[in-house]
Amino acid sequence: MRKSSTSLYLADIGNTNVKFWRDGNFEVLSLKDFTPEKFTENIFYISVNQSLKNVLSSLKNWTNLESFVEIDTNYKTLGIDRKVAIYGVQNGIVIDMGSAITIDVVKNSVHLGGYILLGKSFLIESFREKIPNLSFGNEKLSDEVLPEKTGDALLSGFYHQLVSFIRDLEKRYKTEIVFTGGDSEEMSEYFPNASFDKNLIFNNMRKVVEKNF
Amino acid sequence: MRKSSTSLYLADIGNTNVKFWRDGNFEVLSLKDFTPEKFTENIFYISVNQSLKNVLSSLKNWTNLESFVEIDTNYKTLGIDRKVAIYGVQNGIVIDMGSAITIDVVKNSVHLGGYILLGKSFLIESFREKIPNLSFGNEKLSDEVLPEKTGDALLSGFYHQLVSFIRDLEKRYKTEIVFTGGDSEEMSEYFPNASFDKNLIFNNMRKVVEKNF
Repeated sequence: MRKSSTSLYLADIGNTNVKFWRDGNFEVLSLKDFTPEKFTENIFYISVNQSLKNVLSSLKNWTNLESFVEIDTNYKTLGIDRKVAIYGVQNGIVIDMGSAITIDVVKNSVHLGGYILLGKSFLIESFREKIPNLSFGNEKLSDEVLPEKTGDALLSGFYHQLVSFIRDLEKRYKTEIVFTGGDSEEMSEYFPNASFDKNLIFNNMRKVVEKNF
Repeated sequence: MRKSSTSLYLADIGNTNVKFWRDGNFEVLSLKDFTPEKFTENIFYISVNQSLKNVLSSLKNWTNLESFVEIDTNYKTLGIDRKVAIYGVQNGIVIDMGSAITIDVVKNSVHLGGYILLGKSFLIESFREKIPNLSFGNEKLSDEVLPEKTGDALLSGFYHQLVSFIRDLEKRYKTEIVFTGGDSEEMSEYFPNASFDKNLIFNNMRKVVEKNF
């Protein structure tokens, strides 16, 4: 068993970057700059990245937490990032706002299902690639205001549509909302009563490590 | 003035293809196969495509309808496709579901504003490019069912989020919903009382031609 005083190194490997947590300190590395072989420390990780799967499993100092995260669900192929986000949740709608947005509904410790949407950064990239003459604005509007220019129609389109959807889920499943992920703070003006935990994934990864190692 | 018996040729030039209407017959051409110089007939058109602007305006048989479509709005740079979609509307939320989705709210013949969202085909392309290990399902779920697999989480994520948003707008602006565009028929199960007019753009372009030529 791990001593609680032992230094702890965690990694959350996503589709655009790798986030590290080391004894309370955070670091983010772009995926293209990430070379797992270069690390000599013992690292506990989760990864949604298929291309790194073989390399990571061949390295003895990298420990995949996936098999230690059990979730009661009928959902097929629930990503490990989503499993960790709802780890230990009894009731809640957990929303992880990264380059993809995942929404997961848990009632009585059972995961009922969820959604995957395009996140803000990927959405902006997609418009830039596909309709380059349309540009996103910088400031989102209150969801009671209708956009009157293209930049707002795009940026507030992203937020207002998401807000309507989450409010509907909140009404339907009558449970609290928990936000995490890089863009989650942007939602606080629309959901003043929701919980915001930017470090939810690392906090839950720590729980998994403490329970199993 | 045009004789009403004269043959009428219309073109709606978008971001992915060009749609033609000729005396009641439809044709769609991929943008990459579209060479405006090859057409010898007189064609009335609208275009959101910036790259074709100069070529089209140099051709005498192509008549741009843009300057004949006046809309009462404070919206800056409202695209001509959206102007034509709401042309003649007194009260309504007009939703054009193409590769981009535009939503426009009109009350008492005044355009109050609107949104631009990523349409289904662009969304599917974006996920394929950015997170290739996730694939869309083919059948959407009722909006009262939570997805329990990735394909549903993606496809129904697109529909359910949009449905929540449109219902919110319907409640807020208390006016009827009009759907148009290639993916609009998919919304009929969620909005049984809405109007569906796949040919709204061409029908309104005809009105513009009849009034002005």
